This record gives sequence, structure tokens and C-alpha cells, in this order.
Amino acid sequence: MTPPAPRYAYLGPAGTFTEAALLACLRELGADTSAELVPYTSVGAALDSVRAASTVAAMVPLENSVEGSVSATLDELAFGSALVIRRELHLPVSFALLGRPGTALGDVRTVASHPHAQPQCRRWLSANLPDAEWVAAASNADAARLVGQGRFDAALAGAFAAQVYGLEILADQVHDVSGAETRFVLVSAPVSPEPSTGSDKTSLVLVIGKDHPGALLEILTEFAVRGINLTRIESRPTGGGIGDYFFSVDAEGHIDESRVGEALIGLHRICADVRFLGSYPRADGARPTLRRGVSDAEYSQAQAWLARIRDGRS
Amino acid sequence: MTPPAPRYAYLGPAGTFTEAALLACLRELGADTSAELVPYTSVGAALDSVRAASTVAAMVPLENSVEGSVSATLDELAFGSALVIRRELHLPVSFALLGRPGTALGDVRTVASHPHAQPQCRRWLSANLPDAEWVAAASNADAARLVGQGRFDAALAGAFAAQVYGLEILADQVHDVSGAETRFVLVSAPVSPEPSTGSDKTSLVLVIGKDHPGALLEILTEFAVRGINLTRIESRPTGGGIGDYFFSVDAEGHIDESRVGEALIGLHRICADVRFLGSYPRADGARPTLRRGVSDAEYSQAQAWLARIRDGRS
Amino acid sequence: MTPPAPRYAYLGPAGTFTEAALLACLRELGADTSAELVPYTSVGAALDSVRAASTVAAMVPLENSVEGSVSATLDELAFGSALVIRRELHLPVSFALLGRPGTALGDVRTVASHPHAQPQCRRWLSANLPDAEWVAAASNADAARLVGQGRFDAALAGAFAAQVYGLEILADQVHDVSGAETRFVLVSAPVSPEPSTGSDKTSLVLVIGKDHPGALLEILTEFAVRGINLTRIESRPTGGGIGDYFFSVDAEGHIDESRVGEALIGLHRICADVRFLGSYPRADGARPTLRRGVSDAEYSQAQAWLARIRDGRS
Amino acid sequence: MTPPAPRYAYLGPAGTFTEAALLACLRELGADTSAELVPYTSVGAALDSVRAASTVAAMVPLENSVEGSVSATLDELAFGSALVIRRELHLPVSFALLGRPGTALGDVRTVASHPHAQPQCRRWLSANLPDAEWVAAASNADAARLVGQGRFDAALAGAFAAQVYGLEILADQVHDVSGAETRFVLVSAPVSPEPSTGSDKTSLVLVIGKDHPGALLEILTEFAVRGINLTRIESRPTGGGIGDYFFSVDAEGHIDESRVGEALIGLHRICADVRFLGSYPRADGARPTLRRGVSDAEYSQAQAWLARIRDGRS
Repeated sequence: MTPPAPRYAYLGPAGTFTEAALLACLRELGADTSAELVPYTSVGAALDSVRAASTVAAMVPLENSVEGSVSATLDELAFGSALVIRRELHLPVSFALLGRPGTALGDVRTVASHPHAQPQCRRWLSANLPDAEWVAAASNADAARLVGQGRFDAALAGAFAAQVYGLEILADQVHDVSGAETRFVLVSAPVSPEPSTGSDKTSLVLVIGKDHPGALLEILTEFAVRGINLTRIESRPTGGGIGDYFFSVDAEGHIDESRVGEALIGLHRICADVRFLGSYPRADGARPTLRRGVSDAEYSQAQAWLARIRDGRS
Repeated sequence: MTPPAPRYAYLGPAGTFTEAALLACLRELGADTSAELVPYTSVGAALDSVRAASTVAAMVPLENSVEGSVSATLDELAFGSALVIRRELHLPVSFALLGRPGTALGDVRTVASHPHAQPQCRRWLSANLPDAEWVAAASNADAARLVGQGRFDAALAGAFAAQVYGLEILADQVHDVSGAETRFVLVSAPVSPEPSTGSDKTSLVLVIGKDHPGALLEILTEFAVRGINLTRIESRPTGGGIGDYFFSVDAEGHIDESRVGEALIGLHRICADVRFLGSYPRADGARPTLRRGVSDAEYSQAQAWLARIRDGRS
Repeated sequence: MTPPAPRYAYLGPAGTFTEAALLACLRELGADTSAELVPYTSVGAALDSVRAASTVAAMVPLENSVEGSVSATLDELAFGSALVIRRELHLPVSFALLGRPGTALGDVRTVASHPHAQPQCRRWLSANLPDAEWVAAASNADAARLVGQGRFDAALAGAFAAQVYGLEILADQVHDVSGAETRFVLVSAPVSPEPSTGSDKTSLVLVIGKDHPGALLEILTEFAVRGINLTRIESRPTGGGIGDYFFSVDAEGHIDESRVGEALIGLHRICADVRFLGSYPRADGARPTLRRGVSDAEYSQAQAWLARIRDGRS
Repeated sequence: MTPPAPRYAYLGPAGTFTEAALLACLRELGADTSAELVPYTSVGAALDSVRAASTVAAMVPLENSVEGSVSATLDELAFGSALVIRRELHLPVSFALLGRPGTALGDVRTVASHPHAQPQCRRWLSANLPDAEWVAAASNADAARLVGQGRFDAALAGAFAAQVYGLEILADQVHDVSGAETRFVLVSAPVSPEPSTGSDKTSLVLVIGKDHPGALLEILTEFAVRGINLTRIESRPTGGGIGDYFFSVDAEGHIDESRVGEALIGLHRICADVRFLGSYPRADGARPTLRRGVSDAEYSQAQAWLARIRDGRS
């Protein structure tokens, strides 16, 4: 009896950038080609499928170089049962205007998209379709689906969505800023992290106590004193009222490295709560420049010295 | 000849929380009751009307205790010609389910709202309308308008929108988290700030240079060394690629206070760019507890002493 | 066959405050009453007797509340083979004017003392012996010995030295500042420190690399980030030229405590050299007020948490 | 009528290194060659002559690369009426063994010197005069004087003292460490500092309040945040008991520079007391490497920007 093919969740529907990211990631990991890809209608639903063990991992967007962090992802990872990031991918963001076959640009009266896509194409739209009405959709892929059903004339979406929904590319590269990219993460249930590659990131959720104005400076100092750079820091409301935040952070380095481990101990001691969101290889392959005194070798030497002097051997 | 009534912009359409905030603010300011309130379809459009001098000020949402910052507002204030915040207001967030008169809860098949409203009412919806389909709208007020036109069965919106669009409140208080609130700001062209009230905030946009990992720690130190607490800090992408940020910050205190002025000088010296977004009274009326050495009186004494010793009088 | 009585070194000659400190310390330790006390003519010679194992420990002065640190002691502990502080004592400094029996105050033409004693009695001398000449001696006790030999008329020394050298107290309490005290330390070859008492100090020598202007700030940060207060910090020249220093430091806490151990690891990583000079009970019995997050219990919890998440147990 | 020649004080007697420093300094300053040089028997007496206006300035030693700071100088500058440093000089330390003409090395039974000189020549003495007795003198020049009077056989002093006291150089370069040097300072009543040369030092006395363990870190941060390096920091007892210190500090830069002025304002705000001890040209001519944001030009731009935004001009 063959075991069932592994199931992977993603923020759907089919034809989103997230599906494209999941396909690229599975190829890179050499995953079982029989794997089943399951679209979910929200980040929360995709992650809950992992928590419920109905999928082995979920691909979700984390941040976008134009729109910023994807709040839903940050919040869903920060609360509920623990999950960890296993891989990250950066995909270029590239919008096309999709319509039913035969549609001319001049015929487009309504353009649908997720509200996040509209500002990224605003200048193109006002130059090329000044009179078209923009309409909100739950996702860009959903906008494409609705165009396929005839509800709207055109959708802003990835060019690859055309094929999924039987549409044509009316105009490609309609985004205003070139070079935009989205960062996707593959998330699973907690496992022991894969070994350090020398080019890793560690993601954390840091909850500070109430009414503690210097807390962020304290948090940054825990990283700085051990020579660890942060590549992202976001404040997010906890839901407890204006001014009550947690921080979502990406740091250079791997939890198995001494400097990262010691920083995590420091954060655990001073924060109201710390959640580990995984150590995983960096998409950009960048290696940190370690300053004097923070390498694993220097930590080992210092620890051996401490053991000696505690024993009176000096 | 009577001068024309002043015009105020807000993020529309009519019936949004933002309109409610603008009305409350004008009442509090004792503004001309003949003032004209002009709805705009986006934060950018509302702020641009101020930049173009077609309105004297605009009311826009800045952050929400559940959903976090309103990225569009942060970004629109950070770029383009300079604007300053004049007032802030905190309004409780309270969603109602609105439908056409005579609609029974059991008849609701489709519920429209801005994508941000849906997660705030998710639990109520799954408990009370498990089979209804949720549909995206450009704003909650727009959702109400479309319900009025018969396009959808119900909308998630503020209860006050019912009257505007001829709807009925099918269910009130349908949000999952009570105590949520939104912070709105009234924004105008640059003016000299009103005098310090002793309970003020100063808002800033801080752009750091590229590849400068310790920059955030430096920025926080400029505040900390002068005893200034931050009440909000957000990282936002500049649009230049993943990992390239600016910071949007609210600090305790008023630009006319010495410690705030000196901190601004420090930030201007170390940041690639600093934009002043205004000093204005705090909505919560909280007064900072000044630590030793940072009051205006202590600054004056120290400056007088420096002048004396530079003169050789010691 | 009886074992030989233990031998203890001290900065002599007999009749110095240092001998008084050694006697008090041995009483407190309940040491063998047959112990032999051996005077040495310099701090270096006393410490070298411990290094050569001809004595089991040496009592030497470390700092004085009027004159400051005893440079010879700081330097002799910092260089040469390692030694550790086992106990500290604070003794009040109290000078008397000693003379041969029968000497009248009016007869005193010459007053001898160590150069450090003269400034501590300057005002008394100019008020009471305005015409007497002051003469340098190698130590106050040596001054008393020379007075006994008839070389000078009077000596500034501890009152207890009168008996040792057959002198009389011509005037007691002749020091200008009351409340002055000297801190003495009992030093031995390296041993594993006695267990923490909850009121301990840890002494260190920290050598920074050349041309490293921010090094002192880095060093202080290693302590501060772990909530460790310093009770003494001295810069001392290394002998390598003006501007080339090492730091001699006393910190609150015991090397067996987690926060102190982690700080030592940090210092070892960033300093050119660290020498451990012992963890020992505080003479004043003061207990540190630990800030949140730095107790041994909080360290243990954080370390257990780190082990769990490294294992994928979260 | 000719005005009287200016009088300069120095730590005497004639023939000390301090006299040599004063002569060199007056030559460098192109001072009146008729100036009168007045020796004083202590640093305190020399400085008091300036306070009493009986001399125009005093030359005193401040620190030695082997023995460390001259406590008497640090303390006398820190207390009493205010004085300022006008110039600094570094002179190499070089000891000779001086005796009466015709003395053979083999005849030397007693060697006199200030107690600070003995440890600097210890190895030479034990190698070449193992049986000679060392005797304390009030200063090295005084030791030479006493040798001239026949009281002792030889003195450790600067070679230039031989001529002053009619002695011969029995052995030159008898110090153990070559390259040692002493830093001397010329001190006057407070005057407006001479203009910045681009290579200056500023000396300060910083008194911290009682029981304020983090004060030193705060003080260093006031310098660090403005990119100012310290070239010397000494803790000195205030006389108020073990553990009660003030700090004597030399910082790079000149009081007329913006970054130094702002740091002084910061120190004045947080310290119990600050005493300015002068801004003066560096003896070594070194120029600080200014980090981004701390030049006078950057301060001016930032101040002009602050004035604009306070005015509402943005």
C-alpha cells in the first residue's frame, strides 16, 4: 500500500503568487512530485491546516517591498499553537492586466484586484485607463476568476493566472515600481532546525510587558551586544489597545550558534514572552560579517576559561 | 460678501468612522459650523486635497488597535510635499451588521466589508452566519452603499452608517474583540505648532541610509539619552527592496521643548532624512514623567553654564 | 611531628594598619592562633612570598577613601602569576602623633611619615605645629621606628604603633577628615572560590586592545546588560605609554552566579585579556537589588527553554 | 617704569622634571625671557599661588605612563577655586644615579629618591647595587640636594639635576622601562579658551550623585552619542568613604565645537557637578576622525532645519 502523497497548503486560490512560490520551493527541495497542493482562502486557514496536521506545511506571504508586512501572517504566526518557518523565498512582483480573450484595452470599464494591488499599479491605471472603475476583490486570483465569470472586465494579477482562469494578458508589467518583490515563507509544525548553513535567519516574536517604554532599546541591546544584526523589525498591536505592541523580528544567524542562543536567553529573561519562529537558510545567501568576539570559537574559548577559573585553575 | 465656508477632507464615503471622527474633532475645536465636509475615496486623495489647498485639513485613520497601522496613511504622510498632524482622536471600533429594512438574519447569504473588517468579526460570523459568503468592498461604508443598492445582503460597518444608506441594524456589536479603537489624525499644511500643553506627542518619519544595521539602535539612543519615550514605532518599506525601511515614530513631548529639539537635531545629523509630522496634544491627556536632567529648566541652566565657561567666567 | 604553623605575609613593618587588618581577619576566620605573621617591605614582596609559596596568603591595602587606590597593589595583582582575593576588610583610618616618652608638643621640630599620610593631616599640622619640618619615610611605621631611634622628633602613624616602637601618643586623631577608611584584601594563590553568600564582590583586571576608544563603553555594557553594578573602576597605565590603560574593576556578585559568569564570558570575548582576581564576601554585607531577568532562576528557565526549542519541542 | 617680570610656579625644587617642562613650555610659547620661575614644595602650593594671583600660571605633573595619574594634581584641580589647563607637554622619563664628584658605584651604600622613582629603577638597583639601602625623600630633586649635603650617597633623579646640586652622573638611564613619559600641564586662572586648532583636548571633573550605579555608563553615553572619544578616565575618591568617586576625564575636541558643547550640556544635566578644566592643544598633534553627523557643519545644518520647522516652514 503506497503512503498518501504529502499535502501542502497555500494562500489560494490557484494562480496566486503564493502558489508559484510553493511550486518553486518544492522543486528546490526536491519534494515528492506527487505532492498535493491545497489552496486556502486565508493565511489563517492555511496555517490552521498545518496546526491540524491536515497538511505538512503551508506557503504564505510575509512581506512585500512595496506594501510592507502582511499583517495577517505576522499575527497568525504570533498567536495560536507554535509553528516554525522552514524556508524563505523572494519572488519578483509583476502585475499584468488580464481580461477575457478578445477584450480591447479601450473596452475595460472595471478593474478588479485585492486592495493591496491597486496602489502598486495606480500610476499605470490613471495613465492608461483613466476612466475605469477599480473594484475590490478578496485576492488578485479571485479577481481573475470573477473576470472569467464576466463579473468585471479586467483583473490585476500575476501573468501566470491568465492560464488558470482562461484569460488573456491585455498588458504586462503594469506595476509602477519595478524591482518590487514579495517574501514568502514555508511554515511547518515545530521541528529541530536544520543545521546552520553560515547564511541563516532566525525569526522571533517578542512580547514586551505593559508600560515599559525602554523595552525596545533593551531588546535591541540584547542583539547588539552579541553582534547580531536585525534584517526586519515590525511592531504589531497585540489587540489590547492603542500603544500595546509586540515585535516581529528577523535576526541574522542560527539558533544553534552561540551568540544567537545567548541572545535568545537574554530576550527570554527580559520579555513578557518570546516565541521562536524558526532558523532557516537566507534566500539571498548573504553571510554576516562577524565582529570580534562573537564567533562560536570565541564563545567556546571563553566558556572553557570560565570553567577553569570557577575551578580555581586560572 | 461672506467668505466661503472652510472645507475639510476625510476618507469617505459618508458614514465611515472617519467622518464620525472629523465631526467630533470639529465640535471639539469649536470650528465654523458651516464647514463643508468632503469625502475622498482614498487616504492619498484626501491628503492631496490639502496639498492642493482645496481643503484646509484632512481627517484620516492612522492606526487600529486590532489591525495595526494604516499603511496608506503612513506612506502618504512620509512622501510627497510636507504635511503636519494637528490633532489626534481615539474612537472605539464597533461593528454592526447592516441590511435593508425587513431583512431577517436567516436571509443573509452575502456579507460585504473592507478586507480589514472581516477578521475583526470572524468569530461572530462563523457562529451566527456560518454559511454566508464574505465579499470584499473598497470600504465598509461602500459595502453599506452596495447593500442599499441590493448588490449584497448585509454589510459590516459602523452603526451610524445605517442611516446614511437607508439600512437597518440587523445585529449590533458584532466585533470579536471589545475595546478595540482606531486612532485618527487631522492633517494640514505645515504651520508653526501650537504651544506645548505639557501632554503632547511629536510624530516623525526617519529614513536610514542603506546597509546600516545599527541605525535603529542609534535612533532609539538619540531619544533615550534625552529621556524621551516613544509611544509608537513602525518600520515601513521604502519601496527600494526587501530589507530597506523607514521608521514612522511617535515620541512623547513637543518640538518646542529643549529635549525634543535636541533629539531632533541628533536625528537630523545621523539619519539620511527626517520629516517632522507635527507636535500636537495627546488624545489620552497623559503627561510624561521626566527623569532627572531633561526638563526645560535644566536645559536652560546647563546652556547658561556653558556660555559662562566658554567666556572664561567659570 | 607537628606541622609547621602557617605563615601569613603583610605589608610591614610591624605596627602598620596592614598588620592590624591581618590580625582582625585571622581572628574573624578563626585561623590557627599559632600562625606566623611575616612583614614585607613592599606590596610586591608580600605578594611574591605567596607566589613562591613561602606564605599561604598576604594582607595588603587596596584603596583608601582619601588617597584613592594603592597603585602598587593594583599593578602587582594585575601582572605576574595569578593570585586571588579571598577576603576584604574596611578599617577606619586614624592618625596619631607619636613621640618618645616625655616629648612635649612644643619640642617637635621634625615630623616623619609616608608621603601619603602628610596630606591627610596637613590642616592639623599647620594649626598645631606650624614650624615643624615634615620628612618623608618609607612607611608610617618606619617613621615611628626612626623616631624611636632619635632620628626625628615625631611620627604620624596609627596609635597602635606607639607600643611597638616604645613611643607615646603626643596627640590622637590628628587626621583632618574623619570617617576615612582603608580597604585591605587578603590574597592567596588561585583556588576555587568559596560558595556565594548572596553578598559578594568579584574583582577583575580588564586589558583592552590598543587604539580602541569605545572599549570602556563596551565593557560597561557587558555588565549593564546583565544588571551587574560596579562598585569600583580604576584605569591604570599598562606601562606602554600615555593613553594605554587597563581597568581594575570590582563588580557586585559572585562568579558562580549565572549573570556574572555570562558577563565574564562576554568580557573574555571582547577584551585583549581578562584576569579573574577572585569572588569573596563583601565587607559591608550589602546585597544587590537584582532587576528583572537576571536571577539564577530566570537564567535556568531561559536555558531550559532554549534547549527545548533547539530540540524542536517549542 | 618697567612692569614686573611675570612669575611662573612649578613643583620644585629646582632640578625636577617639572622645571624642565616649564622651561620647554615657555620657550615654545615665546614667553618673556625675563619670566621668573618659582619652585613650590607641593602641587597644592603651586596651584594655590595661581589662585592667589602671585603667579600667572603653574606647571605640574598630571600623569606618568608607568606610575599613573598624579593624585595630588587631579584632586587639587578638582576642588578649591576653579583653574584651567592651558597647555600640555609629554616629556620622556629618564633617571640617572647622581652622586658627589668622585663617588664610585661600589661606594654607594644609600640611595635616596621619591617613593615613586624607586619602583621604576628596581631591577637596575637590584642588579647593580644589591646591597644599597633605599631611603625615601620628598622629591627626587630633594634627594639630590640631600646627597649634595652628604646625607646620602646617591640619588635617583633626572640627569639635569646633577648640575643644580653639584653632583656627578654615576650611571645614566637607570630606569627599567624605556619609553616612559610624564604628562605635564600648565594651569592658570579661568580664561576664555584659545580657538580650536582641530587637535585639542578638553579636561573635565565629573561628580556623580551618591548611590547611582549606572552613572558612569550614562556619562560615557553622553560622549559616545556625539562621537567623542575619551583619551583618559580616572576614578578618584571624593573623600566621602569607600565607593564614593568622582571622574577625571580628558576628551577629544574643543569646548567651542558643537559636539563638545552639547556633551557638556548633557553632562551638566545628569551629573551632581561638572567642572571644566580647559580646552587646549594636544601635545601629540593627533586629530580625531569624526564619524558621520558630528561635525560643526552638520550641527549647523540641523539647527537651521529645527528653526525652520519650529516656524512652520518645514
